Amino acid sequence: MSTSTPPGPSRPGPTQPAPTGTDRMTERLIEVPPGLAGVVAADTRIGEVRGLEGFYHYRQYSAVELATRRSFEDVWHLLVLGELPDAAAGRAFAARVRAARAIPPRTAAALPAIAACASTGRTDPLAGLRAALTLAAGELGIGPLYDVDDGQRREHAIRVAALVPTLLAALLRLGRGEPPLEPRDDLDHTANWLYLVTGLVPDERARAAVQSYLISTIDHGFNASTFTARVVASTGADLAAAVVGGLASLSGPLHGGAPSRALDTVDAIGTVDRIEPWVREQLAAGRRMMGFGHPVYRTDDPRSTLLRDLAAGFGGPRYALATAVEEGVLRVLEEVKPGRGLRTNVEFYAGLVMEFCGLPREAFTPTFAVARVVGWTAHVLEQAAAGKIIRPSSRYVGPPAPQPVPER
Amino acid sequence: MSTSTPPGPSRPGPTQPAPTGTDRMTERLIEVPPGLAGVVAADTRIGEVRGLEGFYHYRQYSAVELATRRSFEDVWHLLVLGELPDAAAGRAFAARVRAARAIPPRTAAALPAIAACASTGRTDPLAGLRAALTLAAGELGIGPLYDVDDGQRREHAIRVAALVPTLLAALLRLGRGEPPLEPRDDLDHTANWLYLVTGLVPDERARAAVQSYLISTIDHGFNASTFTARVVASTGADLAAAVVGGLASLSGPLHGGAPSRALDTVDAIGTVDRIEPWVREQLAAGRRMMGFGHPVYRTDDPRSTLLRDLAAGFGGPRYALATAVEEGVLRVLEEVKPGRGLRTNVEFYAGLVMEFCGLPREAFTPTFAVARVVGWTAHVLEQAAAGKIIRPSSRYVGPPAPQPVPER
Repeated sequence: MSTSTPPGPSRPGPTQPAPTGTDRMTERLIEVPPGLAGVVAADTRIGEVRGLEGFYHYRQYSAVELATRRSFEDVWHLLVLGELPDAAAGRAFAARVRAARAIPPRTAAALPAIAACASTGRTDPLAGLRAALTLAAGELGIGPLYDVDDGQRREHAIRVAALVPTLLAALLRLGRGEPPLEPRDDLDHTANWLYLVTGLVPDERARAAVQSYLISTIDHGFNASTFTARVVASTGADLAAAVVGGLASLSGPLHGGAPSRALDTVDAIGTVDRIEPWVREQLAAGRRMMGFGHPVYRTDDPRSTLLRDLAAGFGGPRYALATAVEEGVLRVLEEVKPGRGLRTNVEFYAGLVMEFCGLPREAFTPTFAVARVVGWTAHVLEQAAAGKIIRPSSRYVGPPAPQPVPER
Repeated sequence: MSTSTPPGPSRPGPTQPAPTGTDRMTERLIEVPPGLAGVVAADTRIGEVRGLEGFYHYRQYSAVELATRRSFEDVWHLLVLGELPDAAAGRAFAARVRAARAIPPRTAAALPAIAACASTGRTDPLAGLRAALTLAAGELGIGPLYDVDDGQRREHAIRVAALVPTLLAALLRLGRGEPPLEPRDDLDHTANWLYLVTGLVPDERARAAVQSYLISTIDHGFNASTFTARVVASTGADLAAAVVGGLASLSGPLHGGAPSRALDTVDAIGTVDRIEPWVREQLAAGRRMMGFGHPVYRTDDPRSTLLRDLAAGFGGPRYALATAVEEGVLRVLEEVKPGRGLRTNVEFYAGLVMEFCGLPREAFTPTFAVARVVGWTAHVLEQAAAGKIIRPSSRYVGPPAPQPVPER
């Protein structure tokens, strides 16, 4: 970034830019690293990623420990309501979530038209979700965050996150030309999601594995989508608008969170003997290895470790190939880019676990969103409580102004 | 904000938080004012607001001068393509914009269902636009910013901004139970917008006044919606997703940009003799005066001056009442809150000008969006060229972690 002004007519205004900022605005400009890297945009009690330790937590609990010891609904309760429920509160919360799953009728009527647009161009179920969630919020009367009280905000947060799996599964099925299924009250959040997508009630091993994945994915520091949701929330927009903002950022290729790409790597390699030549080809062509490396962790990604263990529980030739690919990629990476210490990231085994559990690849990122929306809603509630708009500044670096407007 | 840690079990991790930050992440945390106030989130060549001077500009030209001397399409060309066009380039760009107005067929088919949701709850045409624009982007195959070249990005930017008036007018009319109108190729962008909303071709005075309003509204510094659009763009999401993010933030009450509220003030007062008592009542009740005060300008808002002049051109009793209200409010504000120097902001006369030009109040914020979307798309193109994700950090201020997860 530069503060220098290109040559041009001298500026007639009463002040000139200072070397490292300007107070022509009502505030002094504060210079920070590009992309706001490391800048504290919010205080949070929701969680934290400790990259050097390979550890992340939700409130005061290890996320990985939660993923193996509590239900998705319990952890949702923790994130959104602030504490882990006891047995009675957990049952009540699960019932509250079940009651909030149904798509309101006019939004349901709009879904085929939404899915029809999705089938012609590049719109995917997550883009369709941006549309569907906006309509549902309107139909349900989910009002601006600053026009409703704390209790209503929490209700909206639960309603929106409970609705997301039903909407996503409906869009997935309509996109395949199949009618949406009705949520089943005898299934918990995880099993209901698997049922809505596949039409099959999962066995306990699959349900538990996907539940662990979902829990481990609810939140992960201040990524771009979480930040976007908080920026939108900070304007006082409604809860669904904030989630739609998060979904918009999630759709960006730089965001990550696309577990199917890493599985594409495994498929492209195909057999154990092709691992080394394939990896060397990719690196020689300057391509990134999907599923490896993470901007935060300098140790094993704790989510990868969790998901590798879950995948190991399924075993079989597919698991054997995946572990061989992991081992081969890491070995060649260390040889070609020594000392970088690249590790397997969350995408690699997440895709494998979802595949083992019967989810089609087009449902991988939607499954990610089913979990992450709970994290976004927790952040939105926290941001709404802060009550301060997030509005940084920009620095003008163009030619001096004003210059006379030429006649056309 | 606080870095202190509440009492609790000691943290088992190898490091402890430092008083003003922590490097447990891979980066040091940088403390800045709440809401990122004054923090430079981007370098820009698009424009700047000089609050102390009462001046703002688009690239190197005064925005107010542009608003009275060039066409909306010319200024659009300036913002998105970087320079004012000569006559031939201006004609070519206007033709390009006209050709991009039509709603693609599947999106058009979805609009009644979108409007039907809008009519039951709190969804307004701008929320409907979030849905419609998402579908249109899918149908038109508008792909992620980093998957397309510069020329395609600019094409997408023009397509999206050209489509917004057609979509908004269709949603407004469907919401009133009227069929949408087809864009008219014999009308420029401004006249076509007025025609699509009202069904009438405006006279030249109305067209010129609305055009000046639209030009003056294209951009105005780094407000929350512009920032949101840039954050989404920085992930490489598609152009429509970035605009949808901007729309989400625009919907927040703290964002501003709702010209109908100031006109509601004029209506609530009704007659000249009620001005003083009404203003004193409102202030005594602790209510804000809509249409007065701005976070940036410490002088007359240059947009207010422009719009007051435009409104004066229409004159009549309505204008007389509005100026009397302005004078009365400023007098009482100076008496009750002396030295604050509160001034009339852009909303006050913007609403009056739109009313004079035959726009119904429900079309005021949509009209704002018709202009602002051009600014957002310019910022999205600039952000995409920067190619760096905007991802600040948060600071964990909750109880120390990890604590043991209790059994349910």
